[in-house]
Amino acid sequence: MPHLRIALLGCGNVGRALLAMVAEKSDALREERDLTLTVTGGLTRSAGGWIAPGGVDAAALLASGWPGGPAPAGAQPFTGDGVAFVREAPADVLVELTALNPLTGQPATDHIRAALESGKSAVTANKGPIAHAYRELRDLATKNGQRLRFESAVMDGTPIFGMVEACLPVTRIANLRGPLNSTSNYVLSRMAQGESLEDALSGAQALGIAEADPSYDLEGWDASVKATVLANVLMNADLRPADVRREGLGAEAMRRAQVEMAPERTLKQMVEVTRDGDKIIARVYIVALPGADILGRLSGMETGVQLRTDTLGELTLIEGEGGPGQTALGALADLVAIAHEKR
Amino acid sequence: MPHLRIALLGCGNVGRALLAMVAEKSDALREERDLTLTVTGGLTRSAGGWIAPGGVDAAALLASGWPGGPAPAGAQPFTGDGVAFVREAPADVLVELTALNPLTGQPATDHIRAALESGKSAVTANKGPIAHAYRELRDLATKNGQRLRFESAVMDGTPIFGMVEACLPVTRIANLRGPLNSTSNYVLSRMAQGESLEDALSGAQALGIAEADPSYDLEGWDASVKATVLANVLMNADLRPADVRREGLGAEAMRRAQVEMAPERTLKQMVEVTRDGDKIIARVYIVALPGADILGRLSGMETGVQLRTDTLGELTLIEGEGGPGQTALGALADLVAIAHEKR
Repeated sequence: MPHLRIALLGCGNVGRALLAMVAEKSDALREERDLTLTVTGGLTRSAGGWIAPGGVDAAALLASGWPGGPAPAGAQPFTGDGVAFVREAPADVLVELTALNPLTGQPATDHIRAALESGKSAVTANKGPIAHAYRELRDLATKNGQRLRFESAVMDGTPIFGMVEACLPVTRIANLRGPLNSTSNYVLSRMAQGESLEDALSGAQALGIAEADPSYDLEGWDASVKATVLANVLMNADLRPADVRREGLGAEAMRRAQVEMAPERTLKQMVEVTRDGDKIIARVYIVALPGADILGRLSGMETGVQLRTDTLGELTLIEGEGGPGQTALGALADLVAIAHEKR
Repeated sequence: MPHLRIALLGCGNVGRALLAMVAEKSDALREERDLTLTVTGGLTRSAGGWIAPGGVDAAALLASGWPGGPAPAGAQPFTGDGVAFVREAPADVLVELTALNPLTGQPATDHIRAALESGKSAVTANKGPIAHAYRELRDLATKNGQRLRFESAVMDGTPIFGMVEACLPVTRIANLRGPLNSTSNYVLSRMAQGESLEDALSGAQALGIAEADPSYDLEGWDASVKATVLANVLMNADLRPADVRREGLGAEAMRRAQVEMAPERTLKQMVEVTRDGDKIIARVYIVALPGADILGRLSGMETGVQLRTDTLGELTLIEGEGGPGQTALGALADLVAIAHEKR
């Protein structure tokens, strides 16, 4: 039975949700996917690092209390930085779950590069490295016979990348669009019910979906990073977040759009990527969608993406409310796919 | 480079769309999916059969004019029945596209069984055999080291089966529902605009989406077959179409529902499958969906399915208008997956 040894870099809400899912579903993983997983090393900024060549299973790692408590019994402490950890961990796959710097893609990009250079595949839920260094990392993986997967980089674990890869062969995407920034869409939906932008934003912060700096969401930077990932991976573009056209965004534009909106319409902050001859154009903008547009019917907490293709026509994928569990499922699907491909 | 030899049984609109897609996309199939395909035999009820061990590529087969015209140059005529054709064709995969008998699943079930027994995998766009004989055929495929795939059995090529298999490991579906019968939903949407059921039905027939016998659509038989396939494949049930609870369907129920409907709601003929302890319950019924229900926002020609899962929460997949091209893409995705798995 195939076995994957995982090095876990970063272990916040998503990492803990992943460990819990692997622990809870270990029988199903073995019986349905013919796979066992153990963690052979862990590192977080606050809890420090450890390496255990024999591997710790997910349930035992959770029970040890790490990263809140001490490293699991029998593990050796590790005191180097993230790149050194990735290089030295005796693992088949790096699971990269560090905090995102969306403007640089670091340090995740360095971590993934180190994994691919040291005989490991990489899974990340981090959109930064995919937005900033997709081609380099993809080509490095290919050159070294490793895999790079990142299902949860956009829309949590909703299987946008895996679906296109596994199920839409020879398909060209002419256009894709979707309301992908939850904070903006939550705020716009509350404003439609008469709430002020400030109150709606506080609500989003209380729900834990808004960034501390609201401009990252409202000015379209989060959406630009997502647009870049979708364009580069699904439409073979080579954009960076700064290439995305951010049009009419921010608090003042949202207030004005709310005042000017015709009845029966719904405001959304929209990502759109379009093929125009050889060029790929990515945009983020606020739009008043008519009632007939299915994307306008998404609640403030739902996200979705609609593909226009040359084979299937229009295909829409909608995620209900997302969270760490959804993100963890995407990372687990990536691990299962890697184990299957490496067989 | 892997090569698949295809035996093509049935060649109506979907078969021709598949040949056209393979011909048009042959470079992409080779470069992106590392796959070449040829057809080594064809049989249709009206055009008769042929076998060509050397294989005919899709473009040449289309150019030959078959099945409207003669068999391709160099092919040997074949005069046996479908089962004999499947056994004797020198192929790796049967592509089963014969006309559906949804009440029996025949003759497609016999064709697929013959393929799996004679060293061939099978792809079908036909929901009949999957509704009536899924477990038997699945187990036969496993026993013989072959594959059985049927992406287009429900919602054309919209990747419901492939997505769950490739992207939702260890996931339990607690509930799924969707408006899956295009004729009923088209008719209901026209009735909402004031048209009579009869006129709306004529419109659906003119569009080519309605069966000649409207009761198959309006009484829920089509939806029951789809419900059975979804329940058996995705939720491990062992139902038959007659086990599906058909509640309040038919022309008279549709008229009454239209009269009684509250404003701002949308009528849909809905398939729903629910896990209730160890039991799986499948139903088809007419429902007045509130505006907040995304499935109520689908146009009359769109179909969709919403999954409630223990890993991803809610996930919704929506197909724009379907047709032979969409169905062909599902069959092509199945062929690509089989080539990849057999490697």
